Amino acid sequence: MQLRVPATSANLGPGFDSLGLALKLYNYFSLKPSKFTSIQILGEGSKNPKLRIDNAFVRIFNEQLKKLIGETPPFKFVFNNSIPISRGLGSSSAVIIGALSAAFKVAGEAFDKQKILNAALHYETHPDNITPACMGGFNTCMIHNKEVRFLNKQLPHCISAVVVIPNQSISTHLSRQTLPKQYLQRDAFFNLSHSAFLSVAFFEEKWELLKEASMDRLHQYYRMRQIPILFDVQKTALTNGALMSTLSGSGSTFFNLCYAEDSKHLYEALSSKFYKLRVLSLEFDNFGMVFDDEFKL
Amino acid sequence: MQLRVPATSANLGPGFDSLGLALKLYNYFSLKPSKFTSIQILGEGSKNPKLRIDNAFVRIFNEQLKKLIGETPPFKFVFNNSIPISRGLGSSSAVIIGALSAAFKVAGEAFDKQKILNAALHYETHPDNITPACMGGFNTCMIHNKEVRFLNKQLPHCISAVVVIPNQSISTHLSRQTLPKQYLQRDAFFNLSHSAFLSVAFFEEKWELLKEASMDRLHQYYRMRQIPILFDVQKTALTNGALMSTLSGSGSTFFNLCYAEDSKHLYEALSSKFYKLRVLSLEFDNFGMVFDDEFKL
Repeated sequence: MQLRVPATSANLGPGFDSLGLALKLYNYFSLKPSKFTSIQILGEGSKNPKLRIDNAFVRIFNEQLKKLIGETPPFKFVFNNSIPISRGLGSSSAVIIGALSAAFKVAGEAFDKQKILNAALHYETHPDNITPACMGGFNTCMIHNKEVRFLNKQLPHCISAVVVIPNQSISTHLSRQTLPKQYLQRDAFFNLSHSAFLSVAFFEEKWELLKEASMDRLHQYYRMRQIPILFDVQKTALTNGALMSTLSGSGSTFFNLCYAEDSKHLYEALSSKFYKLRVLSLEFDNFGMVFDDEFKL
Repeated sequence: MQLRVPATSANLGPGFDSLGLALKLYNYFSLKPSKFTSIQILGEGSKNPKLRIDNAFVRIFNEQLKKLIGETPPFKFVFNNSIPISRGLGSSSAVIIGALSAAFKVAGEAFDKQKILNAALHYETHPDNITPACMGGFNTCMIHNKEVRFLNKQLPHCISAVVVIPNQSISTHLSRQTLPKQYLQRDAFFNLSHSAFLSVAFFEEKWELLKEASMDRLHQYYRMRQIPILFDVQKTALTNGALMSTLSGSGSTFFNLCYAEDSKHLYEALSSKFYKLRVLSLEFDNFGMVFDDEFKL
């Protein structure tokens, strides 16, 4: 069995823990029944031996399988990862969605993405990465009674992404600790109005409104000042065709959205100025997690 | 010249200062050039002599006219008001939008609702009532550079409103003072996710999702406890067909949305139980402010 799960960019400025979208940058997970468990990692993470000893995919896969069928038969796991680790592009969520999807499939459960998402909340309490990882497209999410609720919008080809990936990682957990525990009423209401406006702008394809709608007062500043070059990345993106430019998840990656026809210029402006950082030009993914009969490796 | 402006219900649960919609309940404003200024008030407010001495409509109308043409010629004003005053149904916003629209028309300005909305921000700093009063329908709003930004959704006939209007008023100003000055991160994020989800649910006409999406943690409780019967109104509405049941603006009115086919039952359940309060069954307005050539009095 093979499956792939896309990278994701969450928050999107004001939409803290609520908004996220999927990118055509994938982790591929391959599983074969075997006499012994073995793990092979290609691409991102391949140089980190810890990931073969305590592997999150294998752990989550086995935990879920144990719940579903009461045992954990051995598999040969091969992971081919393109999603950078700890850079705010949803690599953890990709692993969670991949492992749970694989476990449900091995257990012979009827395929149900809502069930996978609800199970994923056990490992990741916020829905803004796991939902686009599972569903693709742009998603407005919330939690209700410990279940994920989402509204999904397929993204058209006329828009595109350019992401800027610093070499430095930011731990989501540490990054969250740098945020205020309380917010001023006016700042809370600022983000509330902007996240609602931004969501509708995506659903209604009002791309020209994204720039104003993607303003944030609750988290980006606190996180970006840990890697000050990000302020310059944002400014450069917005003056070179980006329709919005926001910290991806808790960082360190910066996510920029532009018209597809402007992506070459935006890519060149960012990669020439920030030549020490990784810059990727990416399309949006509208499928989310898929099994091997739905994609070509 | 005659114009009409609809009643409005704002906040809609989580969407503090951001979301609002218009109802088929109107204030009609009539103006005729005259030798002397005179004010006649029919309907709501007719028994309050103060409203003829210091009238907000006349004051705003004259202020705007002075700005536009440098003088304030006398008019005979006749106001026929159906929007209850200080009940959270946008009577102040109706007056502001009406007065500004009339002033722009008298001054011979090209008709531009965006201009009217931006001018209205001078009198009402939050966009959630003035926008639906001006535009009709459901609106997701924000402020950018002292201008109103809105995304407007026409509401279909399959849904309808039943409002419950207590005899007691709540001053918006006092009501705002009862709110916390700071919010916990988790409560701010709760409302943020819900207001975005609720907005998209309206735009995508996912009526069954309104109930979960309309949950609030930032203001309703603080305001409702001033009129405890409102908790009972909400519970009764939600168990009698309401798809959502939220405090209208800062109260005291409760706004309930239901399928049009359920409105008779909801109306009867609420009016029989809360027979001391006013209960109105209303459709949604999709026009906002209109001049007399666009409506029949």
